[in-house]
Amino acid sequence: MTDLPGYKGKILKKLKKAEVKIGDIISIEKNKSTYEGTLIPSSEYGSKKHIVLKQRTGYNIGVEIDPTTQISKVGEGSKPSFEVPPKPKHTEDLSKVTIVSTGGTVASRVDYRTGGVRPTLSANDLYSIVPELSEIAVIEADILFNLLSENITPDHWSKIAKTVGKHIIKGSAGVVIAHGTDTMAYTAAALSFAVQGLSVPVILVGSQRSADRPSSDAATNLIGAVTAAAKGQFAEVVIAMHETINDETIIFHRGTKVRKCHTSRRDTFKSINSLPLAKLKNGQITMIIEDFNPRGGDQKLIIRPYFDEKVTLIKIHPGIDPRIIDWYIDQNYKGIILEGTGLGHTSEYCFPAIQRAINNDIVVGMTSQCIWGRVNMNVYEAGRDLMKIGVLPLEDMLPETALVKLMWILKTFNPKDVDMSKRLMMENFAGEINSRTILQNRSK
Amino acid sequence: MTDLPGYKGKILKKLKKAEVKIGDIISIEKNKSTYEGTLIPSSEYGSKKHIVLKQRTGYNIGVEIDPTTQISKVGEGSKPSFEVPPKPKHTEDLSKVTIVSTGGTVASRVDYRTGGVRPTLSANDLYSIVPELSEIAVIEADILFNLLSENITPDHWSKIAKTVGKHIIKGSAGVVIAHGTDTMAYTAAALSFAVQGLSVPVILVGSQRSADRPSSDAATNLIGAVTAAAKGQFAEVVIAMHETINDETIIFHRGTKVRKCHTSRRDTFKSINSLPLAKLKNGQITMIIEDFNPRGGDQKLIIRPYFDEKVTLIKIHPGIDPRIIDWYIDQNYKGIILEGTGLGHTSEYCFPAIQRAINNDIVVGMTSQCIWGRVNMNVYEAGRDLMKIGVLPLEDMLPETALVKLMWILKTFNPKDVDMSKRLMMENFAGEINSRTILQNRSK
Repeated sequence: MTDLPGYKGKILKKLKKAEVKIGDIISIEKNKSTYEGTLIPSSEYGSKKHIVLKQRTGYNIGVEIDPTTQISKVGEGSKPSFEVPPKPKHTEDLSKVTIVSTGGTVASRVDYRTGGVRPTLSANDLYSIVPELSEIAVIEADILFNLLSENITPDHWSKIAKTVGKHIIKGSAGVVIAHGTDTMAYTAAALSFAVQGLSVPVILVGSQRSADRPSSDAATNLIGAVTAAAKGQFAEVVIAMHETINDETIIFHRGTKVRKCHTSRRDTFKSINSLPLAKLKNGQITMIIEDFNPRGGDQKLIIRPYFDEKVTLIKIHPGIDPRIIDWYIDQNYKGIILEGTGLGHTSEYCFPAIQRAINNDIVVGMTSQCIWGRVNMNVYEAGRDLMKIGVLPLEDMLPETALVKLMWILKTFNPKDVDMSKRLMMENFAGEINSRTILQNRSK
Repeated sequence: MTDLPGYKGKILKKLKKAEVKIGDIISIEKNKSTYEGTLIPSSEYGSKKHIVLKQRTGYNIGVEIDPTTQISKVGEGSKPSFEVPPKPKHTEDLSKVTIVSTGGTVASRVDYRTGGVRPTLSANDLYSIVPELSEIAVIEADILFNLLSENITPDHWSKIAKTVGKHIIKGSAGVVIAHGTDTMAYTAAALSFAVQGLSVPVILVGSQRSADRPSSDAATNLIGAVTAAAKGQFAEVVIAMHETINDETIIFHRGTKVRKCHTSRRDTFKSINSLPLAKLKNGQITMIIEDFNPRGGDQKLIIRPYFDEKVTLIKIHPGIDPRIIDWYIDQNYKGIILEGTGLGHTSEYCFPAIQRAINNDIVVGMTSQCIWGRVNMNVYEAGRDLMKIGVLPLEDMLPETALVKLMWILKTFNPKDVDMSKRLMMENFAGEINSRTILQNRSK
């Protein structure tokens, strides 16, 4: 392992020639500009063309290096410390916000001793990395687990729901959940159902680039999430992320109506079949829709944190083997969400297997792989036939939300029969069903 | 069956009171406007508030009825006839375009004798419904089958590919394929691979509302498709549909980069990770991208129309049962396309099953359920572990396109081992892989 972790090739040579090491304060001169800061490790998969400096402001910047760039050591540094945080000011005026960490890019930082990524551990660490937080709220940190979100399962949803409940009862003005973005929308849907009767906001937040990378969105997203937790007018489960690819606006999406729609962009989350709930710009939160659950109501908080894992999601495609449905019947599954084509269809040759599933008391719900829009199984023969068989059209619910909801319905209410399950699926628990589709501007 | 099929309630009473029947020329007076035309049946699922008139122009309009509306009979009509088409003009100057009908909304019309929907049968029928076609091209019609597209299977793709080849060899200036929209994008991908070395355009076209409904997009889409088939500068497989919800522009999407993104909107098809190929406005076709296959090249037409159905698509979700992969192994599947989370991930607990699939010589490819963006399995541990196991990252390919491509690769090239299949999957046969992601404006 080199003393300059993450740096390779020409940049590594330049750094060695300047006789600098991680933690030194260095100066980089380029195109008549000078950049000064503490040299920190380059993230493992960052650009090979940048040197990463931690500036006095607390932010990291990446400086692109070309052959003319000059590097010099300004001061012999110690490795950057996260042990002495700035003291929060005016604490008497500030609300208490809990940040529950489940893992993911937003919650991690490079450990400067090992070069590995580790979760941010304490409120002090958070203040160090994002100093502005100390002016927005008094942060309480709770490390629940440290998982990349692809490893989050329904069992973890239960633990997160209980933890959220605990902190609300203890008096948090709002709970922020740091979470990987991969399955964040599934968790958001799960919490929307599991945590009912909210009087404060519950904000999931993530980042598409880690805090150690020059272009990280972690700090702005975290500031947005904590601001909404402390001051937001709404008491709902939302996802807080960039609205566009610039840093101006943080947008809050309702937890049952949101989807990750890009593998890498910062504005990856989009509200589907619904407008976003609210946005944050220049420190101000503005509500976008009028029909929301306001902060501070006197509803009773109810935590119903359990999910039945005998529910699956099947995406229909030409040539799909209907015996896959028979396999789920044999495994005693209780629910199947179909991601059908168009308005909610499957090939005719799948009908007998779907019929067998329904004869075996499996709840079969229909959503659309179009993603946008509403299923309508009255228009074409395939839809009408599927409804006759007993398939339930799930309005404008997202396939992922429908999956989570059916898992929750089956465990929470232990319905006495399929009809009761179906009635519960059509009840609107957390804004997952809109009575009409709101037109969206999508790509042209 | 009533004499006024499709009309119910108050409208039916009004029509009966006016003593009119289907085929009569009637006049409707409303808000000082007068609408005149032949009374035709209302489509089964059309609005209950409209009377549908066929105007002299050949188009249908829907007139909303309120209590003040006056209806009167202008002339005793015969049922509208489709037997005497307008003669195409200037046939010597016009190209020959073949319309291959596979079914779907665009290819159907109400049979005025039975009230049922039946496929449009002949070129004459098409000229009757869309008279403009006779000024664009000499139409040759070929009814291949009459299926709603949810019932189209890989076997049908083969038949369509062979039919397209036949008509190109016979000298068509372009082939239009009327197809239901539900699985049109899968068929477009299939034809993009199966029909190589094109020198003329192959245009899939559909409609979101049938030609008998007041707001149908069938005529404008069909005119756009035939125009591009006759005169388009490109020789690729594309989908031709509305660009927006108004009728001004028809947009042509490359067959491997397009997806149905709304259950009911006319502009449901979107190019993903790519700009559309071209657009039609005011009768003029403009290319949008520069890198396309031009009309009239001297490549040799090659039809490779077969697909291996032992390939499936699995959408990953929290709590998914990995034994589903074991089931596919047991059924001797040859390929699995995973629709992973984020940059191309699954839960760790799925790794052993994926490993077993690969040990059994199953090709396992990774795409993303984000839909937009590119998989990158180098960034996080889950991706790196999956690549070590042998999972193939499929760049910016759509999951649906990857599924169709793997079906095609396995049958067409009969690869001697998994490595050869993987190499072929990474070859760019029909623009399905972009070397970099083109940023898109999506919903905000």
